[in-house]
Amino acid sequence: MNYFLKDMGDNQIVDQLIDGFVAAYSHRIIRIPGSRIIQKLKPDKDKVVIISGGGSGHEPAHIGYVGDNMLDVAVMGNIFEPPTAAEVFQAIQASYNGHGTLLIIKNFEKDVASFLEGERMAIETGYVVDHVIVNDDCSIESATFEKRKKGVAGTIFIHKILGTASAQGLSLSELVALGNQTIQATKTLGVAFSGTKPIGDKPSQYSLKPNEMYFGIGIHGEPGYRIEEMKSSERIALELTNKLITQYERAELKSVAIIVNGLGSATLLELSIFLNHVMQLLDIADIAVEFKLLGNFMTSYNTNGLSLTFLNLFDAKILDLLQEDTNAFAWKH
Amino acid sequence: MNYFLKDMGDNQIVDQLIDGFVAAYSHRIIRIPGSRIIQKLKPDKDKVVIISGGGSGHEPAHIGYVGDNMLDVAVMGNIFEPPTAAEVFQAIQASYNGHGTLLIIKNFEKDVASFLEGERMAIETGYVVDHVIVNDDCSIESATFEKRKKGVAGTIFIHKILGTASAQGLSLSELVALGNQTIQATKTLGVAFSGTKPIGDKPSQYSLKPNEMYFGIGIHGEPGYRIEEMKSSERIALELTNKLITQYERAELKSVAIIVNGLGSATLLELSIFLNHVMQLLDIADIAVEFKLLGNFMTSYNTNGLSLTFLNLFDAKILDLLQEDTNAFAWKH
Repeated sequence: MNYFLKDMGDNQIVDQLIDGFVAAYSHRIIRIPGSRIIQKLKPDKDKVVIISGGGSGHEPAHIGYVGDNMLDVAVMGNIFEPPTAAEVFQAIQASYNGHGTLLIIKNFEKDVASFLEGERMAIETGYVVDHVIVNDDCSIESATFEKRKKGVAGTIFIHKILGTASAQGLSLSELVALGNQTIQATKTLGVAFSGTKPIGDKPSQYSLKPNEMYFGIGIHGEPGYRIEEMKSSERIALELTNKLITQYERAELKSVAIIVNGLGSATLLELSIFLNHVMQLLDIADIAVEFKLLGNFMTSYNTNGLSLTFLNLFDAKILDLLQEDTNAFAWKH
Repeated sequence: MNYFLKDMGDNQIVDQLIDGFVAAYSHRIIRIPGSRIIQKLKPDKDKVVIISGGGSGHEPAHIGYVGDNMLDVAVMGNIFEPPTAAEVFQAIQASYNGHGTLLIIKNFEKDVASFLEGERMAIETGYVVDHVIVNDDCSIESATFEKRKKGVAGTIFIHKILGTASAQGLSLSELVALGNQTIQATKTLGVAFSGTKPIGDKPSQYSLKPNEMYFGIGIHGEPGYRIEEMKSSERIALELTNKLITQYERAELKSVAIIVNGLGSATLLELSIFLNHVMQLLDIADIAVEFKLLGNFMTSYNTNGLSLTFLNLFDAKILDLLQEDTNAFAWKH
C-alpha cells in the first residue's frame, strides 16, 4: 500500500499530478480545463502541430516535453494506460492551426490503437493528421518471446528532433519521413534492479530479490525476459553497450547521441557513474559521442533501474536539431 | 550491500561521478585535472567569484549549479563529507580573478570548519574572500535537541540569487549583505519515508518501517527528531506548510518562492501531487506563490522523502534575481 497516495485512485492521481506540474510551470504550459491535455502557454500558429502522450506514471514524460522546439501538446491517460481515442481527437481539434498535426506514438498495443483511432476520427472530420510510431526497445531476443518492439526512452529524441524540425518549417510529410528515418536509428535497452510498487488502480506486476536484475522490462511495470544476478555498473554498461552496438551495421556507426535514463528511483550519482562507464566503452570502440542526456526522462513510476539509448547520427542535421535550445522543462542539456 | 557500486569506495565513486557529469555537460563545465573542483568552461573575469560545495551524495548538488548566473565553482568532498580546507583553498586560488571570492557554506559543523579554514588560508595568502552560511533547516523543535540549524535545499535559492547578483556587478560586501538577508528569509522542513542504503564507505544511519515517516532528517543520512505513522501527501503538506508559516512574522509573509525537493528516490509524480497540495494550502492562507521549483535539487543519496522550502519575497528584486535565466543544468524552471 502506498501511504503517500493513500486512497487515491487513478483519476485523482492523474488529475492532481497534472495540476501540480501546471502550477509549477504556469509560465510555460496550460491545461485545457476539464481535460488531460496540456499545451504551450503561447501556441505557435505557423507550423505543424506536434502531439505526443501516453499513460501517466512516466513523469517527467510527457508534460515535461511541452515547449518551444519540442511538443506543442501532451495528452495523458490513466497510470500506464494511454488516453482514449476521444481524448486524442480532442487534443488534435483543440490545437489545430491549419498546418497539419503529427502524432508521436509509442509502440504499445493500446497506445497505437487509441492514437490511430483518434487520428481516424480527426481525418474523417476534415483535419490533416499523420503519425510516426517509435519502437526503439531492442531488448527482445527471440521473435517468439514477444512480437512488439516497444517505444521507450528513445521517444524523447524523436520529440526533440521532430519538434525542432517543425519549428524550422518542415511539412507534415517531411516530418514523417525524418521521423521514420530517425526512429530506425534509435535503439534502447533497459534493466530493472527492483519491482515497481502498486500505484492507484495498478498492482505490481513482478518483484525481484535484492541481488537480482531484470533485463527487457517495460515502462509500464511489464516483466522482462531474463533475471540475472545483480552486476556492477561497469558490467551492466558493458553488456548494454555491446548489445546496442550489434543492432547497427558496425561500419555505419561512427557517432552517436546517447540517453542514460533513470526509470524512477535510480539516483543521479549512479546514473552519472554508469554514463562514465558507457563513455569509456564507446571511446575504446572508436565511436564518437556527440550528444548526451543524463537523468530521468521516461520513468516507470518508482522502478529502480535504467535504460541506455543510442541514436546513430546518420546525418549532421540530426545533431543540429538536438542541439537547438528548448524551454521544455524536462530536457536538460 | 550496493551491487551496482560493488567494491567502490568513496574515492572511486566521487571520481567517477564527477567524470560522468563532466562528460555529460562537457559543453558547459570542466574539472580541474586531479582535483574535485568543477568550474565553468568559460569563467567570467569581471565579477565576484561564487564558490559552493560540500559532500558528494547530494546530486545534482553542487555540480549541477555551476553555470551562468549561478555558481562559478563547485568543490566536492567524499560521500557526505565536505572537501578539505586545502581543497577549498585550491578552489579559491584556481578561480581567482581579482574581484574577490564569496563562499556559500551549508551550516554543518564539518563544512563550516573546512570552508572557513580554506578561507583563512586564502586570506593569509593575500586573496579577498568572504562567506555566507546557509541555515534554512527549521526542523529543530527544541533547542536542547540539537543546536545547529543545518543548511539544506534552501541553499539552491542562495546559489541562484547571489550568482545572478554577482553577474549583475554587486561587490563582495554587497553580496554578503544580500546573502544574509536572503538566508534569514529562507526556511526548509524535510521528511523521510525510508532510510538510506549504505554507499561507499558510509553505513546506513537509521532505518524505517514501511508505514513510518521521520521528521527532521538531515541530508547526510542523519536521524531526525520524530518518527510518526506515515501520512498522505495532503496531511504532510498541511503539517509542513503550517509549520513553515509559523517561522515568519505572519503579517510580513505575503508572497513566497517555494522548492518542493525530492531527497533521492521520491518520484516526480509524488512531488507534483505534493506541490499541488501545498499550492492549495497557500492559496487558502492568502500567500501568493510567485516562483516554484519542483524536482530533485539537493538529495540525500537515495532517501525516499522530500523537503519543502519557503523564501519570503521580502523585496521585488529577489524575485527578479530568481527569474533570470541560467544554463546550470540542475536549475529547472
